[in-house]
Amino acid sequence: MMAIRYEHIKTCKQTGARLGKLHTPHGVIDTPIFMPVGTLATVKSMTPEELADIGSQIILSNTYHLWLRPGSDLIREAGGLHKFMNWDKPILTDSGGFQVFSLSDSRKIEEEGVHFRSHLDGSKLFLSPEGAMDIQHDLGSDIMMSFDECPPIPAEHKYVKDSIERTTRWAERGLEHHIKKGRDKHQALFGIVQGGEYEDLRAQSAKDLVSMDFPGYSIGGLSVGEPKPVMYRMLEQTIPLLPENKPRYLMGIGSPDSLIEGVMRGVDMFDCVLPTRIARNGTTMTSSGRVVVKNKKFERDFTPLDPNCDCYTCKNYSKAYLRHLFKADEILGLRLTTYHNLYFLLKLMEDVRSAILNDNLLDFKEAFFDSYGLNVENPKNF
Amino acid sequence: MMAIRYEHIKTCKQTGARLGKLHTPHGVIDTPIFMPVGTLATVKSMTPEELADIGSQIILSNTYHLWLRPGSDLIREAGGLHKFMNWDKPILTDSGGFQVFSLSDSRKIEEEGVHFRSHLDGSKLFLSPEGAMDIQHDLGSDIMMSFDECPPIPAEHKYVKDSIERTTRWAERGLEHHIKKGRDKHQALFGIVQGGEYEDLRAQSAKDLVSMDFPGYSIGGLSVGEPKPVMYRMLEQTIPLLPENKPRYLMGIGSPDSLIEGVMRGVDMFDCVLPTRIARNGTTMTSSGRVVVKNKKFERDFTPLDPNCDCYTCKNYSKAYLRHLFKADEILGLRLTTYHNLYFLLKLMEDVRSAILNDNLLDFKEAFFDSYGLNVENPKNF
Repeated sequence: MMAIRYEHIKTCKQTGARLGKLHTPHGVIDTPIFMPVGTLATVKSMTPEELADIGSQIILSNTYHLWLRPGSDLIREAGGLHKFMNWDKPILTDSGGFQVFSLSDSRKIEEEGVHFRSHLDGSKLFLSPEGAMDIQHDLGSDIMMSFDECPPIPAEHKYVKDSIERTTRWAERGLEHHIKKGRDKHQALFGIVQGGEYEDLRAQSAKDLVSMDFPGYSIGGLSVGEPKPVMYRMLEQTIPLLPENKPRYLMGIGSPDSLIEGVMRGVDMFDCVLPTRIARNGTTMTSSGRVVVKNKKFERDFTPLDPNCDCYTCKNYSKAYLRHLFKADEILGLRLTTYHNLYFLLKLMEDVRSAILNDNLLDFKEAFFDSYGLNVENPKNF
Repeated sequence: MMAIRYEHIKTCKQTGARLGKLHTPHGVIDTPIFMPVGTLATVKSMTPEELADIGSQIILSNTYHLWLRPGSDLIREAGGLHKFMNWDKPILTDSGGFQVFSLSDSRKIEEEGVHFRSHLDGSKLFLSPEGAMDIQHDLGSDIMMSFDECPPIPAEHKYVKDSIERTTRWAERGLEHHIKKGRDKHQALFGIVQGGEYEDLRAQSAKDLVSMDFPGYSIGGLSVGEPKPVMYRMLEQTIPLLPENKPRYLMGIGSPDSLIEGVMRGVDMFDCVLPTRIARNGTTMTSSGRVVVKNKKFERDFTPLDPNCDCYTCKNYSKAYLRHLFKADEILGLRLTTYHNLYFLLKLMEDVRSAILNDNLLDFKEAFFDSYGLNVENPKNF
């Protein structure tokens, strides 16, 4: 018995996008899906009940951050992350790899693992493939990630090749440790395909990981500065190499256009801090594109943020009120924009799933891009 | 037809505290009552629905702050404060007087009104008794305050006497303006008794204001640094001078002991930023006294903040989780403590009302002070 099971429902005749259900220890989720990010055991400014109300079926939390604060041992003592943060639906955790490479100082990569310094207090830390498993076991997430290196784009072919080969060895060590601890029946460990912008390396990484028979596969190291067409090409080339009966997770992607493009190329799962991060600065995603609520032009605009949205924010508040809250640094302002942005993306994914069911995802995409102000042929990097 | 009507229900045989109902244009409220403060058209971090859920029947908002941001004309255009902020229950607004004296710079008091500079940008402003009415008319609050000067304690007798006499003249001008504008049928204007710590001046202020037949009376200028026994003495001396058929509002008081002591002396309404302000610093009010959730000793305390509380925070989260949120500067932390503190005070007032009904408020007070860690004979200044 595996911890998770992917159930394929149908494939969109117009695009090849797939509709499915992912069965996890904390419930079934509809795919393709967007996962809100709760870095430090909280999706910033939201309660778990609000997340559920807007249709969040699964959230992501960050291993590196929780390891440092409050500590994974503390969360284990609390009864695991679900109980600690009062969220009883599925949780996916990353491996900490991305943060070790993007946030920490004085990194030194060795075969055994990575030495680095905490971004909080500069203390010396070490993370290994086995350590990343132990932390995620403490957290008790439904879906775990293998410890990986996320190389930058651009990077030399030689560097990336060495990197993915080490990442593959790390994935193997992590998987072995995970099984040895008997956690594979309760938590599903994904392998992460890396390879930068090199098709041959993406292929090599995918092939090696697939041979280990992970219950799901992530595609990492994209949206790290490369143009979107490069990302889409990598997806087109990588996804056919992944097994059809396993879920595919594109890491760190959350702009509406990329979600749709990803789904059309066969992705099932996405996460990103984008909707919550921009919301805290007063930038919102609406049916007619981005709206910056702090703009002077909304000072006396007593209409809703998005007249086509039926979320709590849009049903009860005006742009003038939201602007006032942001100008006055009131917490309710970012609560309301965060709520709206997450609702918008979750609703978008619900619409995408309907479109797959109705075999008209391409039509849906064109209408959406048009109303959102995106050029279908040349999407803004957005 | 007056805008409000006070309905007396009963007087506690043990203490003389009174139970009543106040009928307002936006609904009936039970008195004695605590009013959460929504300075800038939002009770910091809370939605209106959450306020209603925890039993808030009326909130307070600040004239001075809203006049500066977003502007009372803007709120009038939005359809009034209730609609602007999505709160359809009663709202009380202060007059701006207190903030003019506590926040602004370069004050110059004249008979006509007060010249001062904005605490936000230093711009020159002028507020008169009539202006304070106009702003509150724009806001559309159910209960308005007369423009007053709030003298400090200590202050010389001569200074305070001149001040209350001017405040009385201002109250008269404001009332006349209010009636001339035809707003007295829709918004109830209170007079504010001042007089510092001088019994004769409190008596003079009360007598003069009562002769003008306001629909309600506030007691201002207390809890400005004087010992609590001074405040209680002023209440004991002033309240018997106020009419029994009008509500009495003690301004700016919110510590649990002072609420109970105020009720015992005949106060019907209270407001204070205390519960919300201390919550944002991680300090909470519980059935066993104050609890500072950031304390190291709660690091691995997986029990609720207050085991005797059935609020959302206490039912779903541990002290360890709250501490983690505060240590990590997560917004959910202060949302949860704010929610709890307001719930605690609103529940306290509900219990106080029950105790009046049951003629045992003195017993209730002694039990509460004991469990809260307060010495009944010598309450901490808390």
